[in-house]
Amino acid sequence: MKHFVIITGGRISDAFAVQYLRQESFLETAGNKSERSIIAADSGLEFCYRNQLLPQFAVGDFDSVTPETLAYFRQQQGIAWYPLNPQKDDTDTEFAVRLAIKNGAEKITILGGTGSRLDHVLGNIELLGIGMEAGVPMELVDACNRIRMIKSGIVLKKEQRFGKYVSLIPYTDCVKHLYLTGFLYPLSDFCLQGFCSLGISNEIVENEAEIKFDGGILLVLETSDEA
Amino acid sequence: MKHFVIITGGRISDAFAVQYLRQESFLETAGNKSERSIIAADSGLEFCYRNQLLPQFAVGDFDSVTPETLAYFRQQQGIAWYPLNPQKDDTDTEFAVRLAIKNGAEKITILGGTGSRLDHVLGNIELLGIGMEAGVPMELVDACNRIRMIKSGIVLKKEQRFGKYVSLIPYTDCVKHLYLTGFLYPLSDFCLQGFCSLGISNEIVENEAEIKFDGGILLVLETSDEA
Repeated sequence: MKHFVIITGGRISDAFAVQYLRQESFLETAGNKSERSIIAADSGLEFCYRNQLLPQFAVGDFDSVTPETLAYFRQQQGIAWYPLNPQKDDTDTEFAVRLAIKNGAEKITILGGTGSRLDHVLGNIELLGIGMEAGVPMELVDACNRIRMIKSGIVLKKEQRFGKYVSLIPYTDCVKHLYLTGFLYPLSDFCLQGFCSLGISNEIVENEAEIKFDGGILLVLETSDEA
Repeated sequence: MKHFVIITGGRISDAFAVQYLRQESFLETAGNKSERSIIAADSGLEFCYRNQLLPQFAVGDFDSVTPETLAYFRQQQGIAWYPLNPQKDDTDTEFAVRLAIKNGAEKITILGGTGSRLDHVLGNIELLGIGMEAGVPMELVDACNRIRMIKSGIVLKKEQRFGKYVSLIPYTDCVKHLYLTGFLYPLSDFCLQGFCSLGISNEIVENEAEIKFDGGILLVLETSDEA
């Protein structure tokens, strides 16, 4: 499975991100190397430099990257550079998502896509829709959260859960005929609408929990307590 | 104007929050006291304790409040207590928003509504819709962000701006006939849709900037660089 990780310039926990990359086989020097690609978006390059990772793609205007880091990677072989104009309509991360899809991504993960600037966080959540529309499973991940956008049901295994809580937020005005089974707070044929907090802080209580619905788009947030 | 501040249990910068409360006349001992109310939602009580503020309302199950803090406020006069069952459909913050509106709020601010748990952040953004529907201007504020939800246009004055950037995210599938004037990146009769990052990181360049649209609901995020 071709897995692309986009490393972007928000707040990033190096310890968490490196552990994620290790677990997802990005740090192996042989084997399925061609199945794993890193796209460094702008100052995501600094993360790569700090952790001695070679990205396959670098996108951005690089105005927030130090000359030292930039010079280092300019000397490396095997990086495809995509210089972007800072006066552009989309963000570097959006460009990176589309680049991943163009290159045959079968899974996309955004690391470094969260932080204190909530416009960036919400903007990156919007981008999950690009993966969803292209049929490519996509997630925005940090040390505390895994966020996915879905338009059909999924099954979550308790042993693979990301954090203690599963919260559901309707992305569209309404998520229709929602059924939750295997959760602490189950639902049956429910219409989940905005402007309310009913979907927050549910928990998986059986080995498997299922989210089923028919109509609308749902954000699934798996979170652990404050880090 | 009756201004309610809801202090909830996310990450909170005491320095920022106290400065906000001072600027909004919450710390005056006389004068328009009846026009300013603090609702402490669950561990928001800890913020009040640390900063010697007396809330007018306390809502929650208080299971994350220390016995010392709870005992202190139990002895104070003038707090209306609303004990909530932890097994409830809505969050403490949602209850607090509805309580503010029931008590005649003409403006509502949520402090402490952000932090590393993004399900809480998104849940709190959803709650902005309750204020919007009730015709009460409402904002979610932290040291880096001010977030509002609007269904009709607004004018932003440069001298009163919250941060350097203004980002626009469509809350509904599409925000129609969007016009931006006085911004670095103006727009004219644009349909702003989801799954894209076009609305991120705009800037006010004239004394006044106007956001006008006709159809849909828009999130307006004013942000400063990473704190």
